[in-house]
Amino acid sequence: MQATVITIGDEILIGQITDTNSVSIARHLNAAGIVVREKISIGDDREQIGRSVRQALGESNVVILTGGLGPTKDDITKKTLADLFHSPLRNDPTVAAHVERMLAARGIEFNALNRSQALVPEACTVLFNAHGTAPGMWFETDGKVLVSLPGVPFEMEHLMAEEVMPRLKARFALRQIVHRTLITAGLAESVLAKTIEAWENALPAHLKLAYLPNPGTVRLRLSAYEVEGESVRQEIERQFEALRQLIPGHIVGFETASMQELVHNLLTARGLTLATAESCTGGAIAARFTAMPGASAYFLCGAVSYSNESKSALLSVDPAAIRRFGAVSEEVARQMAEGARRISGADYAVSTTGIAGPTGGTAEKPVGTVWIAVSTPHGTTAVLKQCGTDRGQIIDRASALAISLLHDVLNRN
Amino acid sequence: MQATVITIGDEILIGQITDTNSVSIARHLNAAGIVVREKISIGDDREQIGRSVRQALGESNVVILTGGLGPTKDDITKKTLADLFHSPLRNDPTVAAHVERMLAARGIEFNALNRSQALVPEACTVLFNAHGTAPGMWFETDGKVLVSLPGVPFEMEHLMAEEVMPRLKARFALRQIVHRTLITAGLAESVLAKTIEAWENALPAHLKLAYLPNPGTVRLRLSAYEVEGESVRQEIERQFEALRQLIPGHIVGFETASMQELVHNLLTARGLTLATAESCTGGAIAARFTAMPGASAYFLCGAVSYSNESKSALLSVDPAAIRRFGAVSEEVARQMAEGARRISGADYAVSTTGIAGPTGGTAEKPVGTVWIAVSTPHGTTAVLKQCGTDRGQIIDRASALAISLLHDVLNRN
Repeated sequence: MQATVITIGDEILIGQITDTNSVSIARHLNAAGIVVREKISIGDDREQIGRSVRQALGESNVVILTGGLGPTKDDITKKTLADLFHSPLRNDPTVAAHVERMLAARGIEFNALNRSQALVPEACTVLFNAHGTAPGMWFETDGKVLVSLPGVPFEMEHLMAEEVMPRLKARFALRQIVHRTLITAGLAESVLAKTIEAWENALPAHLKLAYLPNPGTVRLRLSAYEVEGESVRQEIERQFEALRQLIPGHIVGFETASMQELVHNLLTARGLTLATAESCTGGAIAARFTAMPGASAYFLCGAVSYSNESKSALLSVDPAAIRRFGAVSEEVARQMAEGARRISGADYAVSTTGIAGPTGGTAEKPVGTVWIAVSTPHGTTAVLKQCGTDRGQIIDRASALAISLLHDVLNRN
Repeated sequence: MQATVITIGDEILIGQITDTNSVSIARHLNAAGIVVREKISIGDDREQIGRSVRQALGESNVVILTGGLGPTKDDITKKTLADLFHSPLRNDPTVAAHVERMLAARGIEFNALNRSQALVPEACTVLFNAHGTAPGMWFETDGKVLVSLPGVPFEMEHLMAEEVMPRLKARFALRQIVHRTLITAGLAESVLAKTIEAWENALPAHLKLAYLPNPGTVRLRLSAYEVEGESVRQEIERQFEALRQLIPGHIVGFETASMQELVHNLLTARGLTLATAESCTGGAIAARFTAMPGASAYFLCGAVSYSNESKSALLSVDPAAIRRFGAVSEEVARQMAEGARRISGADYAVSTTGIAGPTGGTAEKPVGTVWIAVSTPHGTTAVLKQCGTDRGQIIDRASALAISLLHDVLNRN
C-alpha cells in the first residue's frame, strides 16, 4: 500500500516555512503500514495542484494533501478538487454552525469569507475539524483515497489521528512496516561500515539498512516494508544481537530515540534529577528536555547565564576565575555545572560555555570553541569541543554533545 | 528561471527527520531570482531517483539534489547519476587527498569506502566540499543544470553558498524575485481579509498576496516573480502604504522577521537588556533569542525554574504565594518576571508559568493554561492565555505569545 503526500503553499517553495506537516503525516502512515513513496511540495497554483494530484493518484493508493484551505483568496485547493472530481460545492450546515460558534467564542464576526469555509464538494465526506474552521475532505475514486487537510499543523494532526487513520485502516487491508534503529557511538561512519561489512552483505533482501550519522553518533536503521510484523521483528532482533558481537561497547541505545530521550529514560528510571547551566547553548538544552512529557519528574531548573555577571549571580561562579581563565574555559564550565547542582539540589547538572559567533572568536579560542561539563555526586567531568563555524550549528552540536556526555557519565555511574 | 529541488533519503519518507535542506536551498534560489516550482522527496531507490531527475529536467532549468552521497551502501545517488549521464566514474585525486587529510585529523583510517567517495562521474565538474568527505557535482545537459550535493546540512549549506550560487549567477541571466511581508496583529484572518478586500481586489496581476496566520499575528506577503526589482519594490511600498491607511494600528512590523527578531531589533536599537524566567516554556524563549547573532548585547540571563523550589531559589518567588495561588497563577508569573529583572539588573524581563501537559491539568486550570508576565521599569503586565492541548503546541504558542506581549509592552514604552 503506497501513499503520496502533497503539501501546498508558496511559503514552502520560497523557504519561508519548514514543512513539518509531511513529517507527521509520514509517521502516521508508516505506523499503519502504508509506505510513503514520495513527498511533493507545490505552490498555490490551480493547474499545478491538479496535475500533481492526478499524477499521485496514478502512482499511489492513498494521496494526502495539506494546505490551501483557509478563508482567504490565496487558498484554492478546494476549488481545484471540486473541478477535478466534477463536483459542485454545497453548503455543509454542521460546518457552518461550528465555524460560527468558534468565531463567536473569540468575539469575531461571521462574514462571507467564513461562510465559504462551510462549502465542500458534493463528492466528498466531510472530516469534522473540531480545532479549526477549515474541514477536512475525504474523496474516493477508482478504489483510491484522496484526503485534503488544512495546513495548520495542530488541526492537521488532530484530523490525521482521529479521522484519517481510523478510516484508512477500515478501508484497506494493511500489512506492517517495521523500522528498528540502533544507536552507535564512538565509530566514524566509514569505520563502522567497514567493521560490519560482512554482516551487512549477508542481510536478507527484505531487510534494508540505513546509516544516519549525527554529531557523536551513527544510527543504524533496519527496515522491512509491508511484511507480517511479528516474525520480522524477531528477525531484526537476531540481526541486532549479531551486530552487538561485532561492535561491543559501541551500541548506546535503540529505536529512534534521540539522545535526550535516552537520558530522559535513564533519569526517570533511576529517580535522579537534573539541572542545566547554559551559556552558548542559550536554553536549547533545557528546551530539549522540557519538550518531553514527564520532564518535570526530573528536570528541576536551568540557568541561561549569558552575561559574565549572571554566571556569578545565578551559579556562584567565582568572578576571579572568569577574569583569570575567561568565560569560555574548563574552570568556568566546571563551576557552572557544580553551581547548578548546588543551587538546585539536583543529582546531575550539565553546563556549556562557548563562542557561538559570528563574533567573539580569537586565535586561541575561535568561534565554535565550547567547554562542556557534567557534575555528578561522584565528581565533575569536562571536555573541550570544536562545534563548527555557524551559529545555529554550534548551538545544535554543543547541545547534542553536552547531552551525549551526560549520557556517557550516567552510563558509567 | 525555474528550479526543482529533490531531497533523497528513506529517513525523510518515514518521517524520521525533518527536511530542512530544501528550505535553505529554496531561500538561496529565491534570493537570486530563481523560482522553485516544486520540491520532491524520494527514497534511496535507483529507479525512482532516475525517474524524478528526468522529469525535473523536463520541467525546470535548474535541478538541485541533496542526499545519498555518503560512504556507505545505502547511498546510491552517484551511481544513478553516472548511469543517467552515461558517464563512467573516475577517481578525483584532489578529493581523495582531501578525504584522507580530513580523516587523518580525526585519527580515522582511510579505507576502501572512503576511497569510493573520491569517485565521480567523468561528465561532472567537482564542487569541492571543504567541510566534508562527499564532493558536490555539477552537470550540464541541454542548457540545463543539475547539481548533486551531500545531505549533511552544514556541508550542503556551504556548497550552496560558495559554489552553486556563484556558478548559477554566472551561468544564467537571472531576473529578480521580490517578496515583502508585513506583519499585522489584533485582527483575525477573516476579519483582516474582509477589511482589505477592495485593496486586495485592486492589486495588479503581477503582485501575488498571501496570508500567513500565526498565533497572535497574520503576516501578509506580496510577491512578484522574475521582475525588474527596483520598480516593483517601490510599487509594493506604495501598496503597503495604502494598506496602512486601511488597518491603522494593526501593522506591527515588516519583512519576514519573526516576533523575536522584532524584539531583538527594538532592544538593540534602544540599548535595553532582557532576562527571561520560564517555567512551562522550559528554555524555549531564551533559546529563540540566543539563536540570533548579537543576542549577547542585550540578553543577560534566563532562568528555567521548572520546580517550585527553583522558582524561589532562582527568582525569589515567595513560597507562600505558590502555596496560596498555585505555581500557575498571575501572582507567581508577576513575581517570576520581577525576580528575573531584580537578579539580572535587566531592563525588561518576561516570564511564563503554565501547564504544558499531558498531565497536571485540573478543571479550573486545564492543560494549556499559561500565565505570561512582562516586567519593565514602568511596572509589570500579566495576561492569561489558553495555548491549546498538545505539549509541543503549548510550548510554541506560549513562547510566541510571551514574546508578542514583550513586543507590545516595548512599543508602548
